[in-house]
Amino acid sequence: MDPKQSEDVFSAFVDEYQKNFFEMLFRFESKAEPIKEAWTREDGRGHGLTCVIQDGNFFEKAGVNVSRITIPLSQGIFQQMKGRRVPGSNLDQIDMNNLGQYDTYANGVSLVIHPINPFCPTVHANFRTIRIKERETGKVIDSWFGGGSDLTPIYLFDEDAKFYHQNIRDAIVEVTGDDKLYRQFKKECDEYFVNHHRKEARGIGGVFYDDFNLESFEKGLEFQKAVAYANLKSYEAIINKRKDTPYNDENVRWRTFRRGRYAEFNLIHDRGTKFGLMTPDARIESILMSLPLTARWEYNYHPKEGTEEARIVGVLLKPVDWV
Amino acid sequence: MDPKQSEDVFSAFVDEYQKNFFEMLFRFESKAEPIKEAWTREDGRGHGLTCVIQDGNFFEKAGVNVSRITIPLSQGIFQQMKGRRVPGSNLDQIDMNNLGQYDTYANGVSLVIHPINPFCPTVHANFRTIRIKERETGKVIDSWFGGGSDLTPIYLFDEDAKFYHQNIRDAIVEVTGDDKLYRQFKKECDEYFVNHHRKEARGIGGVFYDDFNLESFEKGLEFQKAVAYANLKSYEAIINKRKDTPYNDENVRWRTFRRGRYAEFNLIHDRGTKFGLMTPDARIESILMSLPLTARWEYNYHPKEGTEEARIVGVLLKPVDWV
Repeated sequence: MDPKQSEDVFSAFVDEYQKNFFEMLFRFESKAEPIKEAWTREDGRGHGLTCVIQDGNFFEKAGVNVSRITIPLSQGIFQQMKGRRVPGSNLDQIDMNNLGQYDTYANGVSLVIHPINPFCPTVHANFRTIRIKERETGKVIDSWFGGGSDLTPIYLFDEDAKFYHQNIRDAIVEVTGDDKLYRQFKKECDEYFVNHHRKEARGIGGVFYDDFNLESFEKGLEFQKAVAYANLKSYEAIINKRKDTPYNDENVRWRTFRRGRYAEFNLIHDRGTKFGLMTPDARIESILMSLPLTARWEYNYHPKEGTEEARIVGVLLKPVDWV
Repeated sequence: MDPKQSEDVFSAFVDEYQKNFFEMLFRFESKAEPIKEAWTREDGRGHGLTCVIQDGNFFEKAGVNVSRITIPLSQGIFQQMKGRRVPGSNLDQIDMNNLGQYDTYANGVSLVIHPINPFCPTVHANFRTIRIKERETGKVIDSWFGGGSDLTPIYLFDEDAKFYHQNIRDAIVEVTGDDKLYRQFKKECDEYFVNHHRKEARGIGGVFYDDFNLESFEKGLEFQKAVAYANLKSYEAIINKRKDTPYNDENVRWRTFRRGRYAEFNLIHDRGTKFGLMTPDARIESILMSLPLTARWEYNYHPKEGTEEARIVGVLLKPVDWV
């Protein structure tokens, strides 16, 4: 597939996934009106569609964002990419002293969903392609996929964690023939989504990958789709199962406290957020839509031993092999 | 004054200021019990006292923390310091290839106070000394002061902003004979406490300084004390004046929204927080006590034109000369 065509095919997947995911949310939400904002960069080099639910009867906040931007390849971005790309990648062709003639093109969907019921987990996912192009000619020098999805329960149901991981694993096995990539990307997820300053994972993981290609664009896209729809279907099933669990003020307090931790990760550690905030004239509201509607920081709070709150904190201190 | 003696004298100021400030808070707070936690680093190279009010009848959260730590001089810290220190400072004596024989000693008090009444502002202050020492001999290679104080109103009373700045200015004039340092450090404060990703100041400023000495240790200490007590007295007067202002749910919502912005600055931009989070085995709860009890992020929320909420946002977009 030629590069222009593959870009369009990827965009179609991204747009359709956004639509499907946002529609799924309204099988639960019945109060909040959908907020849909199309935006374009002032310099004309980017556009997107931000879809948000806020202050609903089911979701406290939910954002599903598509973004397609082209920005100059800066020294900082290039060094970061080069540090992670496999040796022998086409990035080696790039003349460090002439970075100014290249652009970074990023095209993807990202979502963060914060339900109200503390027994319904938060989910995050992102599926993107990155391309390095010659600005003049548009020639693609290098391109790869990145993304993943992960679950952040407020209260832990082991069966939900297993179900979520199992479905993503099975989807990857179906595309690649074995679970090697699941195991590799599950480990990367466990290592990445960590509040390192607390030595505590953000959630129970999923998969996370970057600088990733399979033998063809088509196969890579198939992989992205498989993970994306495993995530959508698993999440829908989980919140459907937990949506009627009764909860009290203490459960809400714990939810709001855990959302403080979520905000910490996104603001201190998340590479995607940093990339966004560093992008000149970025659309801040789309980048920070991932932040919860409400968060809480209590000084030196530790749940009592033997409680469900203490149990999940214990699990977050050490990654679990859920499958 | 010899270095050991001046360290003790500075510690005495820091401890006394912490005590005085924390006691002042209890002239307003009558519900919450004071939380006072003395801590020592496991490696024995640091100790402190964290004083906190949480979930009170007057303060949502308030923290006044003293911390005295000694950590190895790392490449990263050294580069940062050297980049900011005046040329010709003693840091030039340090052999870059032998950083391992030096320590950084940091001794100071820092405080962040978040009242419940949205018409009472948040205040932040920090007064510290930093010293670079030879580990073996304890010899002080270089030392300087840093700190400042600044106010973050939720609703803006111009007279309070003027009063706060005027008092700090007057205190500096009294120590130094003119307002040159006030103007310089006021500007540094306006440039530093900014949510750059939003091009919006955190609050209405105050003073901020680092890598700072006057002609003697004694004079430098006098400067620190002058700013510290101008801050204490001004803040007490302001909250005393505003404490009975009635407020409604909309005011609380705006307060909680603005506290989201406060958390953004502290987690994304604040150098002190970053330094703390990067310190091996740091006491995270003392560093992050600055975070509000409650915060709120609403997608793309902008207050209506003509409201008090819109007015303060307008002011935060461009620094004001309050004096």
